[in-house]
Amino acid sequence: MSAKVISGNEVSQQLKDEMKEEVVQLKAQGLEPSLAVILVGDDPASKVYVLNKKKACEYIGIRSLETKLPADTTTEQLLEVIDGYNKDKSVHGILCQLPLPKHIPETKILRSILPEKDVDCFHPFNVGLISIGEVRFLPCTPAGVIELIKRGGFQTAGQDVIILGRSNIVGRPLSNMLDQRDMNATVTMCHTKTKNLKQRCLEADIIIAAIGVPEFLKGDMVKEGAVVIDVGINRVDAPGTEKGWKLVGDVEYDAVKEKAAAITPVPGGVGPMTIAMLMKNTLTAAKETMKA
Amino acid sequence: MSAKVISGNEVSQQLKDEMKEEVVQLKAQGLEPSLAVILVGDDPASKVYVLNKKKACEYIGIRSLETKLPADTTTEQLLEVIDGYNKDKSVHGILCQLPLPKHIPETKILRSILPEKDVDCFHPFNVGLISIGEVRFLPCTPAGVIELIKRGGFQTAGQDVIILGRSNIVGRPLSNMLDQRDMNATVTMCHTKTKNLKQRCLEADIIIAAIGVPEFLKGDMVKEGAVVIDVGINRVDAPGTEKGWKLVGDVEYDAVKEKAAAITPVPGGVGPMTIAMLMKNTLTAAKETMKA
Repeated sequence: MSAKVISGNEVSQQLKDEMKEEVVQLKAQGLEPSLAVILVGDDPASKVYVLNKKKACEYIGIRSLETKLPADTTTEQLLEVIDGYNKDKSVHGILCQLPLPKHIPETKILRSILPEKDVDCFHPFNVGLISIGEVRFLPCTPAGVIELIKRGGFQTAGQDVIILGRSNIVGRPLSNMLDQRDMNATVTMCHTKTKNLKQRCLEADIIIAAIGVPEFLKGDMVKEGAVVIDVGINRVDAPGTEKGWKLVGDVEYDAVKEKAAAITPVPGGVGPMTIAMLMKNTLTAAKETMKA
Repeated sequence: MSAKVISGNEVSQQLKDEMKEEVVQLKAQGLEPSLAVILVGDDPASKVYVLNKKKACEYIGIRSLETKLPADTTTEQLLEVIDGYNKDKSVHGILCQLPLPKHIPETKILRSILPEKDVDCFHPFNVGLISIGEVRFLPCTPAGVIELIKRGGFQTAGQDVIILGRSNIVGRPLSNMLDQRDMNATVTMCHTKTKNLKQRCLEADIIIAAIGVPEFLKGDMVKEGAVVIDVGINRVDAPGTEKGWKLVGDVEYDAVKEKAAAITPVPGGVGPMTIAMLMKNTLTAAKETMKA
């Protein structure tokens, strides 16, 4: 058996096309969704992310605003920019690209974004709503994982799910989303102190790997017919290739592919989903303003 | 083997005595911790709870304020009372006793309490902090469960924990607390859609039952040497007794006691811990004002 490959490129494209249609309708009702992105400093990876977000906005029809600030921006200056976007009623979503320069306190900055414009879903108020099961924004990467499972044709209800990795950005919100009543999975969050990890993985119907260890999940840790979602993106040496490196996930892809019912590739799996879900949160934020 | 019985009466008394000493020191520094309790209507059980909270405050030396409102209080009137306590710097904790009369929206009321005075830890902001692993207030019943495990002499690191029940008041916050780095348990939250529940329970080192089903967890669902914490409080018929009813937990006590290493009784287990942890949150809230 060789696993079905669930393509994040395809699913995210589907989502973007659906949103593009929705935006046409929203604009007909006089609502133009908009996202403000703030970039501080010159991190090359951040620049690429911000550019990709801008492109996705353009494709879908979301108005995209951008503020680029120098690396020596003070905390107060950055707070002022955020405050401006907070007060601007034509701006629905605000995103401050991470990482920030070391002298700026990340937590303080992220919590200064109004919860109703916090499309990254990092504000404790929004994190709390996820835990309570009250859906407003969904954290982008976890929501992307769930969308891949669903659109890959798999259900979560009654399934035993193992999450590898308890990060605040992926593992923990995923756990709090998957065992709500609309998902009904039985979730076990595993980490460095988990005993019998291999056995646990072998018993799972769905495994979500989000630990940042290249090819951690081996073929002999997965049962026949499991669904495997790979959130990891790790750069490893690849001597003899043009670049000298390649991207691999947290899953030993070739071996696991032989046993799993479905698997996501790296790159082209969870990665492209994250931006699509950010766009979805932006539409949600915009639509909420119509209710108010 | 017969289990060690972890007494919530004893542990909560210990905690209250420790807090009593701490309050003497805080008062010497000019800080008198205070808790405001709001009771709307005439629910007899609520009156008992409020009285018990008042007694605990008195014992520990916490100043206790109380506002009793009639059952026909409007939402606006209740919000005004809360606003008054929010603004009163001498009040550190605010608790609005539940249930509220049906015409008052519970969510709106609970979210109107300032997060820094929300000693019940029901505000989404505080729920989010628990998920993120940033400790300020701890939800009272889950914190009581953890205290019973710790002071009962058991550790959580590396242990396989089953939580039965995914409520927002007990199961979910417990799950988010137990697998943080300071606790390091491997937690599986189980619910009505979980398959092979008996087998899962049999493999667990610690089982926390919080589903509200009388004596759900049977002796044959628990492995030798497990630690069993019973959060349930169910009133069941007891023909021939004076009252005609008795309280039982979610655990079949006599049978499980023969196999477990430790067990908590009902009543006298988790119950008395909840108020003790509420007092602890009140002290935390008071001490935070000294930092500010």
